[in-house]
Amino acid sequence: MKNYAELWTAYKERKSNRDCRNLRKICLPETEASDKTAENAVNELKAGLKGMLDIEPEIVFGSKVTSKPVTDGKSILDSEEYSISLIEDGINIAAKSSSAILYAVFDILRTVACEKDITKTYADGKTVRPSNPLRMLNHWDNMDGSIERGYSGESFFYVNNEIVIDERTRDYARLIASVGINAVVINNVNVKQAASYMITDRYFDKLSQLGEIFAGYGIRLFLSLNYASTIEIGGLDSADPLDENVISWWKDKMAEVFKKIPTLAGFLVKADSEGRPGPFTYGRTQADGANMLANIVKEYGGIIIWRCFVYNCRQDWRDRKTDRARAGYDNFMPMDGDYHDNVILQIKNGPMDFQIREPVSPLLGGLKKTNQMLEVQIAQEYTGHQIDVCYLIPEFKEILGFKTYCSEDKDSVADIISGDTFNSRYSGMAAVTNTGNDFNWTGNYLAGANLYGFGRLAFDTGLSSEQIAEEFVRMTISQDETVVKEILGILLPSREIYERYTSPLGIGWMVQPATHYGCSVDGYEYDRWGTYHRADHLGIGVDRTDKGTGYALQYNEPNAGIYNSPEKCPDELVLFFHHLPYTHKLHSGKTVIQHIYDSHFEGYEEAQQLAAKWDQLKGKIDDEVFENVRERFERQLINAREWCDQVNSYFFRKSGIPDEKGRQIW
Amino acid sequence: MKNYAELWTAYKERKSNRDCRNLRKICLPETEASDKTAENAVNELKAGLKGMLDIEPEIVFGSKVTSKPVTDGKSILDSEEYSISLIEDGINIAAKSSSAILYAVFDILRTVACEKDITKTYADGKTVRPSNPLRMLNHWDNMDGSIERGYSGESFFYVNNEIVIDERTRDYARLIASVGINAVVINNVNVKQAASYMITDRYFDKLSQLGEIFAGYGIRLFLSLNYASTIEIGGLDSADPLDENVISWWKDKMAEVFKKIPTLAGFLVKADSEGRPGPFTYGRTQADGANMLANIVKEYGGIIIWRCFVYNCRQDWRDRKTDRARAGYDNFMPMDGDYHDNVILQIKNGPMDFQIREPVSPLLGGLKKTNQMLEVQIAQEYTGHQIDVCYLIPEFKEILGFKTYCSEDKDSVADIISGDTFNSRYSGMAAVTNTGNDFNWTGNYLAGANLYGFGRLAFDTGLSSEQIAEEFVRMTISQDETVVKEILGILLPSREIYERYTSPLGIGWMVQPATHYGCSVDGYEYDRWGTYHRADHLGIGVDRTDKGTGYALQYNEPNAGIYNSPEKCPDELVLFFHHLPYTHKLHSGKTVIQHIYDSHFEGYEEAQQLAAKWDQLKGKIDDEVFENVRERFERQLINAREWCDQVNSYFFRKSGIPDEKGRQIW
Repeated sequence: MKNYAELWTAYKERKSNRDCRNLRKICLPETEASDKTAENAVNELKAGLKGMLDIEPEIVFGSKVTSKPVTDGKSILDSEEYSISLIEDGINIAAKSSSAILYAVFDILRTVACEKDITKTYADGKTVRPSNPLRMLNHWDNMDGSIERGYSGESFFYVNNEIVIDERTRDYARLIASVGINAVVINNVNVKQAASYMITDRYFDKLSQLGEIFAGYGIRLFLSLNYASTIEIGGLDSADPLDENVISWWKDKMAEVFKKIPTLAGFLVKADSEGRPGPFTYGRTQADGANMLANIVKEYGGIIIWRCFVYNCRQDWRDRKTDRARAGYDNFMPMDGDYHDNVILQIKNGPMDFQIREPVSPLLGGLKKTNQMLEVQIAQEYTGHQIDVCYLIPEFKEILGFKTYCSEDKDSVADIISGDTFNSRYSGMAAVTNTGNDFNWTGNYLAGANLYGFGRLAFDTGLSSEQIAEEFVRMTISQDETVVKEILGILLPSREIYERYTSPLGIGWMVQPATHYGCSVDGYEYDRWGTYHRADHLGIGVDRTDKGTGYALQYNEPNAGIYNSPEKCPDELVLFFHHLPYTHKLHSGKTVIQHIYDSHFEGYEEAQQLAAKWDQLKGKIDDEVFENVRERFERQLINAREWCDQVNSYFFRKSGIPDEKGRQIW
Repeated sequence: MKNYAELWTAYKERKSNRDCRNLRKICLPETEASDKTAENAVNELKAGLKGMLDIEPEIVFGSKVTSKPVTDGKSILDSEEYSISLIEDGINIAAKSSSAILYAVFDILRTVACEKDITKTYADGKTVRPSNPLRMLNHWDNMDGSIERGYSGESFFYVNNEIVIDERTRDYARLIASVGINAVVINNVNVKQAASYMITDRYFDKLSQLGEIFAGYGIRLFLSLNYASTIEIGGLDSADPLDENVISWWKDKMAEVFKKIPTLAGFLVKADSEGRPGPFTYGRTQADGANMLANIVKEYGGIIIWRCFVYNCRQDWRDRKTDRARAGYDNFMPMDGDYHDNVILQIKNGPMDFQIREPVSPLLGGLKKTNQMLEVQIAQEYTGHQIDVCYLIPEFKEILGFKTYCSEDKDSVADIISGDTFNSRYSGMAAVTNTGNDFNWTGNYLAGANLYGFGRLAFDTGLSSEQIAEEFVRMTISQDETVVKEILGILLPSREIYERYTSPLGIGWMVQPATHYGCSVDGYEYDRWGTYHRADHLGIGVDRTDKGTGYALQYNEPNAGIYNSPEKCPDELVLFFHHLPYTHKLHSGKTVIQHIYDSHFEGYEEAQQLAAKWDQLKGKIDDEVFENVRERFERQLINAREWCDQVNSYFFRKSGIPDEKGRQIW
């Protein structure tokens, strides 16, 4: 017995397709004998069909393909495209790389696992091309084993500052490759302590092994880089990107690193952010910093992913002119076009920090001459710590579908990050992952839907939230139609329910400082983080219009005009952009205050309904899964009640306006 | 050079009294040759007079005294009384114990250190009898070296779970004996980890040595006891005070402990409090728990000090009936008279927890048949962390002077804890100490005035705050009249200034949770600690009258009637007892809201004035002392500004009532 679940790669017995003749023979393109990825693909196929259907297929090799993933820009997509078609008594897979073969295999296994009819599914042939070149997980794992914002146990990469490579490492690679992930950053973006020594002899051997394992599943290894390495491990007194000594140190270091870790694909850098060092310290631009490194790693095919999470985290709460929401755009737009072609700017989905509802970052659709990657967070930092159920794919779908008006057509976020809009060399999606060494990987078993879903969505942004959720449930919990329906009924509305019982109308941030779990309406109101609701006895919200901080004008028209107007702004974001009286009428016809009361009472009630739905599943699904989620629902309801009562009490006490429906407010 | 200051026992050169003939010969009562305390007294006298005046006095021994401190009840006071009178060419000390001789010696040295004329001071003879039998410091030192609520470095008693005995240990004993302390609890009341093993072989040798050192300065050694020792170190499965196995274990244990630590005077116990185990766990009363232990330690002359800090720390903030303020009285009054005569109940000065302003606990003046000790806190947990200057002696004076109406006369708190009111066997004052291994012992040099002052006040509750502060300044900083005047001008109003810029009108608690430093108006409002201000858009305060929680009625009349009435209740406590509209007129003529604005603006301004006063002292006092306090004033002003602005903004935003004076509110 493994001490962790294999989730959707468990390959337990399935009923459908047992008699499918096409599954008896699978034809693959020929690969080099030494191709690990192809070998893994074949093994996976055999294990999956054996486990689920007790079928031992004949494997037939056909035409030759490139054995290594192609890593230069658009060709990632070319190389990862695959086709599956039925042939007489068999299935044919066409693909240009062994990674693509792997994805085709997982496609077939998914079809079987979901008990969909193989012959119907592939009757007309199926060709799939990934939506995004890079589909990446960012681990915020620290080398002491802790995980920043981790809610699923400790790291499975590190114990006591050592890298651990074992069976779980390989199964992790299988697990994420099976949903289409092709890149992983294995250490926290806040690089400190032992992690600063990642790029030294101390860890090269292990990293090289890890990179090999990942490569066998089409996954590129990235490291988070300490921007101040020249000082912290290099013995220099500067990290100035224009300093010759600094540049020279990095040249030697990168030559060493790429030699010692041949599979290394590049680095993720958080600089000048929340106390981390960066080029600003030396009066240089973000582009100076990113380009210096990009210039050096280019000859090794390396990529520099540079995070745009740069803002003043020492704001005075009295200051109403500075606006954290503006910071990303203000800091990065002026240098659009200055970044080297192997630099990618990684942009959080919203301008703040993974709140349950934010407008899309105006950098997406702002930047036109810069490689861009969208960063989302499946670690539920502000969305319930994997205690509360919060299926985030509907949110990601909204973000991807957001029309930025940055060009005549192909102007959605999905278009931009796919590389289509601006014909970008590198682009894609990254998620701060929700994994840890818990038995079920994600703390709450249902949080697995976010891990599964992120990968699937990044691979194919055309999939719907429902489709993804249904796949997850069928592959990991049950094929029973009632069970599937009930769990979809829990997952699909869960994000909006979480939103309803927490922070209303896009205002965000009313959380316990530091932990970010649980309600504290004023928790950040008088603090230095730029995160304020500005509520007084008359109204609430932040004026980010042309009369306020001007943030709304960072968007392209017509978005700018819509957000700038309290009448046109969508309800769900109205307090993000406007300071409004409690008596202001929303599009819904409700006043702001009544919306606050209604949504909180409803959200709490709906959370109770979700829990009750889950309780109905007792005996119908695996006991361990049932109990895991049930126990978390218990905590979710305590949390939801506190949010409901605290938020309502706070605003009733402040506004003095009673609930129209006369419900209990404390 | 020692790596710590000797503060008021430094004995630096003095100018006055250099020609005083009386200091050439000091006559003492005869003591036994082996009497360590007498030996220490003589050595101290010689060192002090040599250091301050370059005088080497002749020491003449007279009549015999009891060599050991007498520990049974009232006789502590008898034994510690001393008289000092002038004789021809000398001074005569009369005393019934060597501790009393020591106190007389420190009296003379204090007179010299303050440059008061010896011949005038003692012209008519001076007889001093301590006000309180027990004058105790409670260390919240943990054995890992940390100090709970410690703001002066680490523990000087413990390093890495070992007891350290060195020169500083002895100098600590000198330091506190010199101000009249005669009892010390050396470990945190929250007994856990290694501290649970204090009563085992592991620490007996060191504790025995420590007890000897303390005894040499008239100081009784106490330990905090883990009530659950039977379980944690005894291997039993119960701590039920009526369980025969439990009783039998304690009998054996206490026999061992008192044998191995012969100087041990007894134990302090925090039971059934904030998660600590206690008799309630077994359905027993607090008296059951205390008496069981007291019964056993009695034959060794031991005392059990039982803390009354018992309340429900899992309150629901929605619950307006439960009142933490009531808990001490509700839990301890019903058993008044049931406690053994070697039990002392240790009662925090207020019913909550060391806020800057609380009413006096109604247990003081409630309990009539129980030994009582007043607990105050000189560790500035809620009063500025020894960053903000907050001279607490004026507060302690108010508490001691509080008329409880528990008897016809002698009904003040000072009377009760002296033992006079109810002719108690054991009683006195304890302070949670503010010491640590910082060079100056108390973090902020001026916080030394609280350590000095607590001892002096506990020894003589008749001393005034001014007198004590002046002694401290003269003995440790300067004899310069301007300097003395300026520092008194800083110390004396500092508590009321701290009160003004923090929480108004007795409401308390608007602090950052966990750290207790800095403002967070709603920090505890929706939490489980029973600490609420109940502010809404119309008013603020907790109704503790007969129409509310009834707490006010726990007092004797006329106090109960006064507190119960919003008209009669003193302004400074009015929000502790009443929920009042912001427009309610105080005795001062101001409305509640205007009082909030005024006091906060004034408090911040006054804090700036204190800092400016201190700046004037540059060059006039020791540089290190100057810089230590200056740096803390810098931080105090940041703190005071945040309090002022956050509290004013919070209540302006909530009430919508503008400041009459139109000052800037954010």
